[in-house]
Amino acid sequence: MKLTRLDKLRLRLVAQDACLAWAFENIKGRSGIVFELGLGHGRTYDHIRTHLPDREIYVFDREVDCYEDCIPPTDKMILGDMRQTVPEAVRRFAGQVVLLHADTGSYGDKHNTEMQQLLSATLAPALAPEGLLLSDLKLDVPGTEAVPLPPGATEGRYFIYRRQR
Amino acid sequence: MKLTRLDKLRLRLVAQDACLAWAFENIKGRSGIVFELGLGHGRTYDHIRTHLPDREIYVFDREVDCYEDCIPPTDKMILGDMRQTVPEAVRRFAGQVVLLHADTGSYGDKHNTEMQQLLSATLAPALAPEGLLLSDLKLDVPGTEAVPLPPGATEGRYFIYRRQR
Repeated sequence: MKLTRLDKLRLRLVAQDACLAWAFENIKGRSGIVFELGLGHGRTYDHIRTHLPDREIYVFDREVDCYEDCIPPTDKMILGDMRQTVPEAVRRFAGQVVLLHADTGSYGDKHNTEMQQLLSATLAPALAPEGLLLSDLKLDVPGTEAVPLPPGATEGRYFIYRRQR
Repeated sequence: MKLTRLDKLRLRLVAQDACLAWAFENIKGRSGIVFELGLGHGRTYDHIRTHLPDREIYVFDREVDCYEDCIPPTDKMILGDMRQTVPEAVRRFAGQVVLLHADTGSYGDKHNTEMQQLLSATLAPALAPEGLLLSDLKLDVPGTEAVPLPPGATEGRYFIYRRQR
C-alpha cells in the first residue's frame, strides 16, 4: 500500500528523533554552538534545548510564531529572510557550529527547491570539523559526507551530513 | 527527562497510526460510514481514504486549506463551524457511523476544552452499535466505553471509545 501523507509525516518525525538522539551523543564533549534553522511552532527548538541545556542555540526564522513557552531568548533569535540571515550568520560563526539542524521543508516544492539550493550553497563554512548537519531536505553540501541513519530511522526520511576534517 | 513538545507530537502520531490500523481491522465486514472531524492539511483524510477506499467518508472543517491532492469531494465536505455542523450531521446520520475520527486538538487550551465539551455532548447518537470513536482529545461520551490502546500506542496520547450495543 502506498505511503499516505500521514505515514510520511510520522516516519519523518520518528527518523528526526532518532537522528537527533544520535547527534546529541555524537557531539558530547566537543565544543561548539548549535544552529536551528526554522523555529516554526518551536517543538524542535524545545527538544534541542532540553537535550543540550549548556549549548548556545541560535534560532532562525522570519518571525516568532510559536508556543509561548518555546520562544528563544532575544539575543539568540535571528529574525529575517533566511536568504540573508543564513549567509551572514555563516560568516559570523564560521567553523563554530557543532550541530546544525535544518527543518525547513514545507508544503511547496518551489520553496523546498529554493531552500535546498540556499542551504547546499552556504552552510559548509559554518560547520566545525566533524560538525553535523541534520536536515529534513536532501542537501548537497561541499566538504561534507552523508552519514547512514541510526537504527529506527527510515533512510530518505531525514538526512545527516558530517563535515570532513 | 521531561517529554518535549516534539516528543508529544511524535508519540501522538505513532499512537494515532496504531489506533487507526486497529480500527480499520476492527470494522471490517461491518456496514457504516466514516466521519473525519478536522480536515487540517488533509493528511489523516488521505490515510483513511487509502485504507478504506469503499467507505463514504464525510469530512468536517471550517474551510478547505489542505494539500491539493487531499481535497475531499464537494458532496462529502461539510463546511462550517463544527458547533453547528456536527450536531446537524449527528441527527442526519444517526446510528450510521462505524468509525468517527476526531483530530480536533489545537495549540490553545480554551479551544481544546470547548471541543471536548462539544464532542462529548453531541457524538453518541451518530455511532452505530459498537461503532468506534478515535480522538486526540480525551472525551466523555455517554453510552461509550474506553478501549485500551493497541500495542505501539502510548496510553494517554490517543483515545478509543466504542459505543455499547
